[in-house]
Amino acid sequence: MQSLSFTSGQLLFSNQTPIPELSPGDALIKITLAGVCGTDLEIVKGYADFQGILGHEFVGVIESVTDSGDNHWLGKRVVGSINIGCMRCNVCLTRGAEHCPDRKVLGIRGKDGCFAEYIALPVKNLYIVPDSIPDESAVFTEPLAAACRIRERLLINPEKRIAVVGCGRLGLLIGATLHLTGSEVTMLGRRSESLKLPQQWGLQTALVDDCSDNSFDLVVESSGNESGLSQSIRLVKPLGTLILKSTFQNAVNLNLTKLVVAEITVMGSRCGAFAPALRLLEQGVINVQSTIDAEFSLSEGISAFQYAAKPGVRKVLLRP
Amino acid sequence: MQSLSFTSGQLLFSNQTPIPELSPGDALIKITLAGVCGTDLEIVKGYADFQGILGHEFVGVIESVTDSGDNHWLGKRVVGSINIGCMRCNVCLTRGAEHCPDRKVLGIRGKDGCFAEYIALPVKNLYIVPDSIPDESAVFTEPLAAACRIRERLLINPEKRIAVVGCGRLGLLIGATLHLTGSEVTMLGRRSESLKLPQQWGLQTALVDDCSDNSFDLVVESSGNESGLSQSIRLVKPLGTLILKSTFQNAVNLNLTKLVVAEITVMGSRCGAFAPALRLLEQGVINVQSTIDAEFSLSEGISAFQYAAKPGVRKVLLRP
Repeated sequence: MQSLSFTSGQLLFSNQTPIPELSPGDALIKITLAGVCGTDLEIVKGYADFQGILGHEFVGVIESVTDSGDNHWLGKRVVGSINIGCMRCNVCLTRGAEHCPDRKVLGIRGKDGCFAEYIALPVKNLYIVPDSIPDESAVFTEPLAAACRIRERLLINPEKRIAVVGCGRLGLLIGATLHLTGSEVTMLGRRSESLKLPQQWGLQTALVDDCSDNSFDLVVESSGNESGLSQSIRLVKPLGTLILKSTFQNAVNLNLTKLVVAEITVMGSRCGAFAPALRLLEQGVINVQSTIDAEFSLSEGISAFQYAAKPGVRKVLLRP
Repeated sequence: MQSLSFTSGQLLFSNQTPIPELSPGDALIKITLAGVCGTDLEIVKGYADFQGILGHEFVGVIESVTDSGDNHWLGKRVVGSINIGCMRCNVCLTRGAEHCPDRKVLGIRGKDGCFAEYIALPVKNLYIVPDSIPDESAVFTEPLAAACRIRERLLINPEKRIAVVGCGRLGLLIGATLHLTGSEVTMLGRRSESLKLPQQWGLQTALVDDCSDNSFDLVVESSGNESGLSQSIRLVKPLGTLILKSTFQNAVNLNLTKLVVAEITVMGSRCGAFAPALRLLEQGVINVQSTIDAEFSLSEGISAFQYAAKPGVRKVLLRP
């Protein structure tokens, strides 16, 4: 089959990759459409020390299952959560697979990803996509779940002022989900160009340099760069909260004085629950498809990555 | 009067300093005893860009007041909270003086401190010290309040495992106050020498290098150095909490990946309420005096700072 992998420090397209073997409880999924995420772009810079087929955002159709009890899944259109825990350790049993020390993560940690014609994934990770959600929206389930994760972790007081630093592929989804709490959400970018789409979505916008120090109760860092992080610390009010939503490959140089003196709470946030994300897609309240900047065939995957890494480009899709 | 100040990058003793002038609402306090804090040691390295008389931990006796309605305070033995807000801004009115953007902070920000024979402080910042608390304990009210602040900010589940990184002057007070929640608290140091006093206090101890990754639900960083911060991040469990209790003068180089991937909550923590700290001192449940390593006269203040900066030295007191 075709695949796009990161091997020995290089992004490689191959059409000679064997179809993945199934473990007990797995389904074989034929990928319909996949999305390139900021994490994928970090991985090809060395983040997470991953080797293998990339990709963790997908929609696909189940072709086979290992357990005959799962036969009702055959032919179903699905999305899938990306963490595969051991399901035996104390962490899996009390906090779920997302934090299992021995977890595999689709296309990120010890598990081939979805930039391929087929993937293997446990049936228990899968969610059926309602018919009303087209593939081009369903492929956003994983990042939308990650955006919703902020609300799983933090009580949002909708009278507080919220800023999202970074108007990229993830930042926009975060802004839109937080906007649905009834909060005043301001999307902050470095260039006025990046504010156009958030404005079309009905979100408030501003240039990050135009904002005064200490002007937001809650700041979400989703720019993925060090300057965005410094700006986020600058913008958050004393006793406020800063959510870290971006994964950084490199160490960053930080002055922590404000965090201590202004008693800021910093919260890391990663994967979220798929069912709420699918319900939001079904409601049609977030126009995820407007963030699609390009679609490439999987065989053009290397060009797709180059395109996705350009400033201002949001979602790039890959179709096997 | 005598004073110890930080001026033009130098620690200076003087016996020619004028007695401070009182603003309306102030009391003039004759200092009985003062304590050297880690923040003082950072200030003389350049932290907070402070110029003036140092010191913010004290016990003293009121000599005069500006408002005759405050005459009942005369002759009272007091300790005092260190933040002086404008009491007019929205922050003061809703969150208190600690986070007022225009606040002065005794010996730290825009306000001469207590390494002097006299200080001026608003009467509303003062707390009468119960007779049962000797000066040598009362002088710990401010750092003990800072230790108790952690419990103001965070619900402590006493079944969770807690580590305090750094067994210094503040770390020990933090460990002791958290121990009073009924939690299992482990004090972590780099050298076995530093673990002796925490052991005498009945706290569990370990060398920080001997602890496995991800082994504590709550980690309090009170070492004040970059290595302690890295260790703290290493030790905290996924979904756990890291409290930053030290002020750092320098920027630190940090890899934030774990904070995001393991969804760690990092909370800065600073000053706390004085009344609970005085109640704990009155209960006598924390043997604060055992952390006193030396007492110097104020005229020997420069030597006192040199001594306090030595590794392993905990509380150093200054007596005018």
